[in-house]
Amino acid sequence: MKEFTLELPVRYYETDQMAIVHHSNYVRYCETARIGFLYDVGLDFAAFEQSGYVSPVLNVNLNFKRPARFGDTVRIKTWIRRFNGVRIWFGYDIRNQAGTLLCDGESVHAFCDKALKPVMLQKVRPDLYQKLADAATERN
Amino acid sequence: MKEFTLELPVRYYETDQMAIVHHSNYVRYCETARIGFLYDVGLDFAAFEQSGYVSPVLNVNLNFKRPARFGDTVRIKTWIRRFNGVRIWFGYDIRNQAGTLLCDGESVHAFCDKALKPVMLQKVRPDLYQKLADAATERN
Amino acid sequence: MKEFTLELPVRYYETDQMAIVHHSNYVRYCETARIGFLYDVGLDFAAFEQSGYVSPVLNVNLNFKRPARFGDTVRIKTWIRRFNGVRIWFGYDIRNQAGTLLCDGESVHAFCDKALKPVMLQKVRPDLYQKLADAATERN
Amino acid sequence: MKEFTLELPVRYYETDQMAIVHHSNYVRYCETARIGFLYDVGLDFAAFEQSGYVSPVLNVNLNFKRPARFGDTVRIKTWIRRFNGVRIWFGYDIRNQAGTLLCDGESVHAFCDKALKPVMLQKVRPDLYQKLADAATERN
Repeated sequence: MKEFTLELPVRYYETDQMAIVHHSNYVRYCETARIGFLYDVGLDFAAFEQSGYVSPVLNVNLNFKRPARFGDTVRIKTWIRRFNGVRIWFGYDIRNQAGTLLCDGESVHAFCDKALKPVMLQKVRPDLYQKLADAATERN
Repeated sequence: MKEFTLELPVRYYETDQMAIVHHSNYVRYCETARIGFLYDVGLDFAAFEQSGYVSPVLNVNLNFKRPARFGDTVRIKTWIRRFNGVRIWFGYDIRNQAGTLLCDGESVHAFCDKALKPVMLQKVRPDLYQKLADAATERN
Repeated sequence: MKEFTLELPVRYYETDQMAIVHHSNYVRYCETARIGFLYDVGLDFAAFEQSGYVSPVLNVNLNFKRPARFGDTVRIKTWIRRFNGVRIWFGYDIRNQAGTLLCDGESVHAFCDKALKPVMLQKVRPDLYQKLADAATERN
Repeated sequence: MKEFTLELPVRYYETDQMAIVHHSNYVRYCETARIGFLYDVGLDFAAFEQSGYVSPVLNVNLNFKRPARFGDTVRIKTWIRRFNGVRIWFGYDIRNQAGTLLCDGESVHAFCDKALKPVMLQKVRPDLYQKLADAATERN
């Protein structure tokens, strides 16, 4: 299975008055890592959208275990849990610089045209379908 | 069961380049509605924190059905699904001005002191414990 | 001169670990009030963009006097300082519920087509040009 | 004069429905670069705050020249324009990966204790005062 890990130093504005990273920012960390993952397996998301497609989010489910704080660097590991050409499931494991698990969870995404009408990736972009299928099943 | 509905016009900066509200903002809509709910049942969250306590998020699980767009007003309905004095479960139902369901889901929260150590609300703030217990079970 | 005041309760996620509203959010408050002002004088910004135009920001200059905190409601007063059909200058005065001045400043905006090429509003949307010209010079 | 440049790939959620980076995010880019600058000259901002001080923003003045888009990497160059121990003035120059100027401007900051009461840095943290004075005047 292909994995990708992105390291992001916590930004000051991401904290809230509990002096921890506001939980909504983990949703954004996951997105940023997911786009890095896709780039890493050959799907340039900016180019993907320019070619006429988008990938809206259908579900986000995150468990918050321990807080990240300003001064920490979060390491977001992500991988494809499942892919069927119409939907894609990502898994997440977010740790701080000490390796402590901060957050885990998953998200589900569709593939659509610009009008948000679902498309079958295998039909409209068979090149990218194959890359994602390989990334989902590859064992290394 | 006590319910609370907050109406929030979509803000321009909440959109992304898909021309829809970025999904992370629904997490923020839920928080804003949740705090409104708590105020409505007698728990002023600003005063609660000033009294030495916080309520960090343990889980967020949201399903995205249809997009909100700039120009829309989102109506976030929230209620207590479960409450045991140590944790609280909120349900959410988010619709646009036409009544179309955009998002539903839930979140789970703990009660802690400022050092993020869990506390039993019944022990440290019995007044608020009772208000939440009433809101969770009240039928109207 | 036409004025518009928008009241926005501070949202929890807008705070940072100084336990005050992060300064970047005032830029967002100004935008939200500006769009409210425009709606109030007859320019529906969502419809304006759907008709093929945008209004990108050229300058933001804000002075931060006193912090807003969670629990506060900010009152953003905005008005047109200057308008010449190509650019528009907005003034801002942001106070809390006690009337204390928190922030003042201004922003400058252009009118462009979707490709971000400048347009003369008087030529492409004379109806809206007149409304803004009236709002800029009206005395009441 | 000491300079510091931070490269940040644009994150998807930073875009708005004009398909450009929302202008409020440049305020956040500047903050992130400024904290990087400070770290680079020996002021660890997380440790600074833990030692009992904060540095609130007094003014932000940014000129937006050209948009950043998703897929771009922004290069934020920052330096100290002026420093008198009570206030500090930062300059900014933000370019994309092609070297095109996107945004320039400045910000002004105070030094305060946790209660937001101004302090003289030379008195409370002479070590850091010297580092900032050196960075402001150093020629290299």
